[in-house]
Amino acid sequence: MQLINKQFRLAARPIGAPKQSDWTFGETPLGEPADGEVLVKIMYISLDPAMRGWMSEVKSYMPPVGIGEVMRALAVGQVLASRHAGFAVGDHVSGMLGVQSHALVQGQMLNKVDPALVPLPVYLGVLGMPGVTAYFGLLDVGKLQAGDTAVVSGAAGAVGSVVGQIAKLKGARVVGIAGGADKCRYLLDELGFEAAIDYKAENVTAALARHCPQGINVYFDNVGGDILDAALANLAHGARVVICGAISQYNNTTPVQGPANYLSLLVNRASMSGMLVGDYLPRWGEAVQALAGWVMAGRIKHREDVVTGLESFPDAFGMLFSGENHGKLVLQLSE
Amino acid sequence: MQLINKQFRLAARPIGAPKQSDWTFGETPLGEPADGEVLVKIMYISLDPAMRGWMSEVKSYMPPVGIGEVMRALAVGQVLASRHAGFAVGDHVSGMLGVQSHALVQGQMLNKVDPALVPLPVYLGVLGMPGVTAYFGLLDVGKLQAGDTAVVSGAAGAVGSVVGQIAKLKGARVVGIAGGADKCRYLLDELGFEAAIDYKAENVTAALARHCPQGINVYFDNVGGDILDAALANLAHGARVVICGAISQYNNTTPVQGPANYLSLLVNRASMSGMLVGDYLPRWGEAVQALAGWVMAGRIKHREDVVTGLESFPDAFGMLFSGENHGKLVLQLSE
Repeated sequence: MQLINKQFRLAARPIGAPKQSDWTFGETPLGEPADGEVLVKIMYISLDPAMRGWMSEVKSYMPPVGIGEVMRALAVGQVLASRHAGFAVGDHVSGMLGVQSHALVQGQMLNKVDPALVPLPVYLGVLGMPGVTAYFGLLDVGKLQAGDTAVVSGAAGAVGSVVGQIAKLKGARVVGIAGGADKCRYLLDELGFEAAIDYKAENVTAALARHCPQGINVYFDNVGGDILDAALANLAHGARVVICGAISQYNNTTPVQGPANYLSLLVNRASMSGMLVGDYLPRWGEAVQALAGWVMAGRIKHREDVVTGLESFPDAFGMLFSGENHGKLVLQLSE
Repeated sequence: MQLINKQFRLAARPIGAPKQSDWTFGETPLGEPADGEVLVKIMYISLDPAMRGWMSEVKSYMPPVGIGEVMRALAVGQVLASRHAGFAVGDHVSGMLGVQSHALVQGQMLNKVDPALVPLPVYLGVLGMPGVTAYFGLLDVGKLQAGDTAVVSGAAGAVGSVVGQIAKLKGARVVGIAGGADKCRYLLDELGFEAAIDYKAENVTAALARHCPQGINVYFDNVGGDILDAALANLAHGARVVICGAISQYNNTTPVQGPANYLSLLVNRASMSGMLVGDYLPRWGEAVQALAGWVMAGRIKHREDVVTGLESFPDAFGMLFSGENHGKLVLQLSE
């Protein structure tokens, strides 16, 4: 029986927000696994802001997706056939599997995951790349201490919601910045943040001044733009700013908006550091172990926003930039 | 005999570049020292970019100079009268003495300096605030290591020239950025930098790429603006950016130009940290001892640009922003 693989390939480098014509959707016949390879039926595809960066022809931490190549994405799925000793038919796995219905990959690119422990999409969220990013970004780069005032932007998102919850577990006061009353209510009522700022309805600089009267000790930035400037205007002495992302800038057709308030770093003897989770591969297990413990104990909550159907990919991906998703955004391919 | 004090007082908060009408020049009779006070005849006044910040009504690391107050400045001079046990008539001293001919101050605000060791202006340069700023900024904040490629802007200036020379002494390759062929020649021929970039004549981004093929490990920024962006575009993995100043932005009437390339911090897992030398008061002696050793041994060279006459203050101060000064700018009051 010949399997057919359905795939989204990058057709053009987007200018501004990605549009339908930047993709081609196609079908190709699938081969059998060669020695060392595994054939995976993809079940959930992770939609992450970082993917926007991979679509652009700029020097970055990894090469861009080539025109005509299958779009790069993390995913989880189930093994259909294996010629790698580490994986058997029926195993669940995660890896960089791409925006497609099936993946034929080297076994060493895969990690086994256990759907009995937590639902599969959680391996793309709290127990995956976003959770590990939050863990090391906050604790290793941001050097959060008990008693700190921590502020996180994109606070209802996959990374931000974990950042805030870890900060609380470590004894910090946490202020989240998110878009819309629903997300802010979620931060306060479900996640227990001390304060939530709706950037669509409030002056963020003034709200941060009100909620952080002693200044911000750790600011974890996922968004850039005006919100980064608002945080810089409210730093405490010796503050640490963690640059994890800048989703407000990824679809810019004009130059990136640099933080005009960067001299606050000087006035407050503060630092601003970039982080990439890929640097923490050797310590991945440390983060997952801590996160899994908290998730199992109900001390870290998580929310997934599941969109169904591979063909929904372009629209679903766009939700990240309009802020429509509530929680970790995943695409479900099979029920 | 009644002494007369000549003083420059701040008359108005400058908008853009300070102009003559932002100052009032006046004379007031001088009193006798009270108990614990010392009367100092000022000989050299230090002109520093930081003074521009002290003129503006913004929250910063120290309160602004009030309207009608004597302009704040570091200076060296000679004791004319003393009612403090630590100082005798004829002693040479340095301190925050202000833009005036005489200062009546608490003795504990003064440090003794020895004109037999080095010329007095050197206590306002390499062995003063600029030198100590360079020392801790480069080594403590910038964490310079042997083998690093270090880049410094304002490289022919009071801080930058010391930064570059310390970096060389510590085994780094040093690239300086300065304005004009004369300054660049000075960096190459006198200070022995590996390369010098004339930002008035060259594309700094391209020149940095050429001179730093492995990227920049430590960038020490005194200027901000486009040059900061050029450096950010050329960072090495794990680079440290030290924000010491932003002289290109101090006279702005528009908002500060934020570094549009700040996401290079993320791509390169780099950090950008502000520094203020005031935080290093407890370790001041450590830096001065090292610097004095290098200066005495001829391993750190220094150049002072001496303008004469207290009445020259407004014009001389303006030279900092046009880049007309060559080396540490001081105002000489008496011969």
